[in-house]
Amino acid sequence: MRELEERIRRDGIVEDGEVLKVDSFLNHQMDVQLFAAMGKEWARLFAGEGVNKILTIEASGIGIACVAAQQFGAPVVFAKKSRTKNIAGDVYHVKVASFTHGRVSDVIVSKRFLLPSDRLLLIDDFLANGAALEGLIALAEQAGATVVGAGIAIEKAFQPGGERIRAKGVRVESLARVKSMEGGHIEFC
Amino acid sequence: MRELEERIRRDGIVEDGEVLKVDSFLNHQMDVQLFAAMGKEWARLFAGEGVNKILTIEASGIGIACVAAQQFGAPVVFAKKSRTKNIAGDVYHVKVASFTHGRVSDVIVSKRFLLPSDRLLLIDDFLANGAALEGLIALAEQAGATVVGAGIAIEKAFQPGGERIRAKGVRVESLARVKSMEGGHIEFC
Repeated sequence: MRELEERIRRDGIVEDGEVLKVDSFLNHQMDVQLFAAMGKEWARLFAGEGVNKILTIEASGIGIACVAAQQFGAPVVFAKKSRTKNIAGDVYHVKVASFTHGRVSDVIVSKRFLLPSDRLLLIDDFLANGAALEGLIALAEQAGATVVGAGIAIEKAFQPGGERIRAKGVRVESLARVKSMEGGHIEFC
Repeated sequence: MRELEERIRRDGIVEDGEVLKVDSFLNHQMDVQLFAAMGKEWARLFAGEGVNKILTIEASGIGIACVAAQQFGAPVVFAKKSRTKNIAGDVYHVKVASFTHGRVSDVIVSKRFLLPSDRLLLIDDFLANGAALEGLIALAEQAGATVVGAGIAIEKAFQPGGERIRAKGVRVESLARVKSMEGGHIEFC
């Protein structure tokens, strides 16, 4: 998606060769007009797939998912990073490793909000190692829900997550696929 | 706001006399069409106030803030609950006590995203003891930004936060003000 790629080129900052900082428009300060354009693009890509619910993960996926969901006329469910030691029996539960923060989180969704009849679109801001997205897929599997696909804002295509998840047969639509960031220069696929 | 009050009456669950659970439409599963109606109501209430940015706090404020922000043509900034021990010098920082979770969080915003020229609307899902909202006000003060007011989805008017914050001179517009929940029966102001 050209608009997103241009925005990344203009406002994205490459740090330490591996980190792409887009916090001025994507995941700290959030440009909701850009999010609406992204939602329209996913609605076009997943038209006719019967998406009835969006599933995302806190915190930075929530804003994108909520604005995009308006294009689908569907509610959003966000998986929560639990801080409580006791995981109650009325939730689906996975463990998700964060490479950015160097820790493992317990991620939960109430069983009331994921149903076997659901046709889910998964939405997140980044796809790199794929841990968060694999966690969402595992939660959907626990519920017996159908994953129609994943809508990702920025995929770091030089990291293994995207390839591994597509190899599972999950359709992944990333609106910007970064091929390399060598020398701070961002190149798209 | 009648639509929100009716939804609370229909789908809200009172637990242990004090907890109002609205996770089926507000803060776990999220009804974005309802959020759009709430955004329109805040846009009407704060019309002409020159709001140029929405400030909220992770996680459950983000979805409401992003959908509402579309009515203002303004970006959203969300204050982050920091998990890192070292708070770097390029952020504004407050400590916020959570009564629900029984712990104190370090809450931060990058200095780049709160400016003295900003006219902020603060948005959050709940106002009860007021700790989260007071944290957002303190962050705005550190930046020298102007707080135009606060848009709250549900205020528990029988708890002290709303009164204390209004006494500071901050305009608070709560779309549903719960007067009491005695015997599980929800009464609005």
